[in-house]
Amino acid sequence: MEWIHKRNVLIVGLGLIGGSYARALKRLGYRVTALDKKESAIRYALDHRIIDAGVTSPEPDVLGSADAVIFALYPGVFVEWIRDNQHLLKSGAMLTDVTGVKSCIVYDIQNMLRPDLEFIAAHPMAGREVYGVENSDDRIFRDANYIVVPTEKNTEEGIAWCRELGQILGFAHIGVLTPEEHDEMIGFVSQLTHCIAIALMTCSENRHLAEFTGDSFRDLTRIARINDVMWSELFLKNKEPLLRQMDTFLREFASLRDLLEAEDAEGLRQKMRLSTERRGYFDKEV
Amino acid sequence: MEWIHKRNVLIVGLGLIGGSYARALKRLGYRVTALDKKESAIRYALDHRIIDAGVTSPEPDVLGSADAVIFALYPGVFVEWIRDNQHLLKSGAMLTDVTGVKSCIVYDIQNMLRPDLEFIAAHPMAGREVYGVENSDDRIFRDANYIVVPTEKNTEEGIAWCRELGQILGFAHIGVLTPEEHDEMIGFVSQLTHCIAIALMTCSENRHLAEFTGDSFRDLTRIARINDVMWSELFLKNKEPLLRQMDTFLREFASLRDLLEAEDAEGLRQKMRLSTERRGYFDKEV
Repeated sequence: MEWIHKRNVLIVGLGLIGGSYARALKRLGYRVTALDKKESAIRYALDHRIIDAGVTSPEPDVLGSADAVIFALYPGVFVEWIRDNQHLLKSGAMLTDVTGVKSCIVYDIQNMLRPDLEFIAAHPMAGREVYGVENSDDRIFRDANYIVVPTEKNTEEGIAWCRELGQILGFAHIGVLTPEEHDEMIGFVSQLTHCIAIALMTCSENRHLAEFTGDSFRDLTRIARINDVMWSELFLKNKEPLLRQMDTFLREFASLRDLLEAEDAEGLRQKMRLSTERRGYFDKEV
Repeated sequence: MEWIHKRNVLIVGLGLIGGSYARALKRLGYRVTALDKKESAIRYALDHRIIDAGVTSPEPDVLGSADAVIFALYPGVFVEWIRDNQHLLKSGAMLTDVTGVKSCIVYDIQNMLRPDLEFIAAHPMAGREVYGVENSDDRIFRDANYIVVPTEKNTEEGIAWCRELGQILGFAHIGVLTPEEHDEMIGFVSQLTHCIAIALMTCSENRHLAEFTGDSFRDLTRIARINDVMWSELFLKNKEPLLRQMDTFLREFASLRDLLEAEDAEGLRQKMRLSTERRGYFDKEV
């Protein structure tokens, strides 16, 4: 398989996800090197044998010996990194990423990339409400989805390689979407739901209600604990798809509100029956 | 304690909650009788020894021998039941309920009640997404809140009795709120969150996205599977408090949307930091 020929893996950005990739790949026998500007992250990963080697700046010999490079950076930093450092990468290296938005970066990167390199985008839909390599854990991949996001510039070999990466990392389900399909999907499934949880927490000072909340309220607001720097960037980079989703939700919520104001019991029940029916589709996939 | 003198307990309405009360009280040694118009519910409960006796209509000797009566009915049906059947109840009997809305029923019932009976309202904040005595299980009370909802018409003895009922049923936390405080709280903690989950499910045909959803989406929409007859009545009976909560949420969600449209990164981050801070209060209470 393709992966046999990619023994040296470089992970750029050693946080929660980068660290989790490192743990899985090292255990599978790859030589894993990490680049992270934070000395403490590299130190921790070396001490805990999560990586084989690590550097805090893009050293030419490290970049030049990587067969595969996995970028686990914020979107803006990722694009800059490619622009500034791609000349140091080994000819024929395969590049992939873990970024949560796609259209806004994939085309830019593929257009500026050296012709002897291939970047095939991916989104591992796994995460936790904690951060940093200290909390990394590749068990988070087990029940999660991994989306390969190819464009016309990708080769069959690149797509197969990226898909196999998801498989060996242990993801439960591998999907393939275009950048546009991905961003529409993630706008609904992830970003809209985070917006809802945020608004529910910020709409009023509800501290005095904490003692009365049950499991369903806690489930619904668990994601209201959010990394503001990362998520504000993800929202802004996916502005148009997310705005469409937010507007669709706003209209629907307002119409539910109007049914209540009009005391339209049958209208409310219809909404509830549709909700129950649709929610059923989501359970079947578990 | 008060409960020693209330050996004969009558449960009116033998569904998920009524059945769960019956299981707990029977195990504690009370003689539990149930009234439910559904023959199949009574039959099931007798076959599974959830109750000691059961009837499908308000038989005078059953009503006349109950020391305590627990109403587990929909709000409208509950008020009618009291009007039609209270003359059959034993003098000195204590009455309580499990209804999810309070202001709209508590005053009406207390105003029409015979002076030799006391009704002290309660809301056991426990439930499941399934229904009926067949799914009853008093373990649902273990981590849940039980709210006693007294008015000026209640005696100290009645309040103590109702609180003790919550304790012997095994609730983790017993609280006391006025009917108005209860309805405001339940509008936010429970009804608003159900409205959000419904609107998220009904706002678009998302069946094709089911394969991409993760745990956080499933957590957020678990309550979108909803009993339309019960919940439409609960929403309508709590119309004003719920409308206030929905409008507050709508305004906040719209302002988050406007920050995104204006590409106000710092504004978005402020909302996320506030959200993270407030969510912290809710974890401390677990």
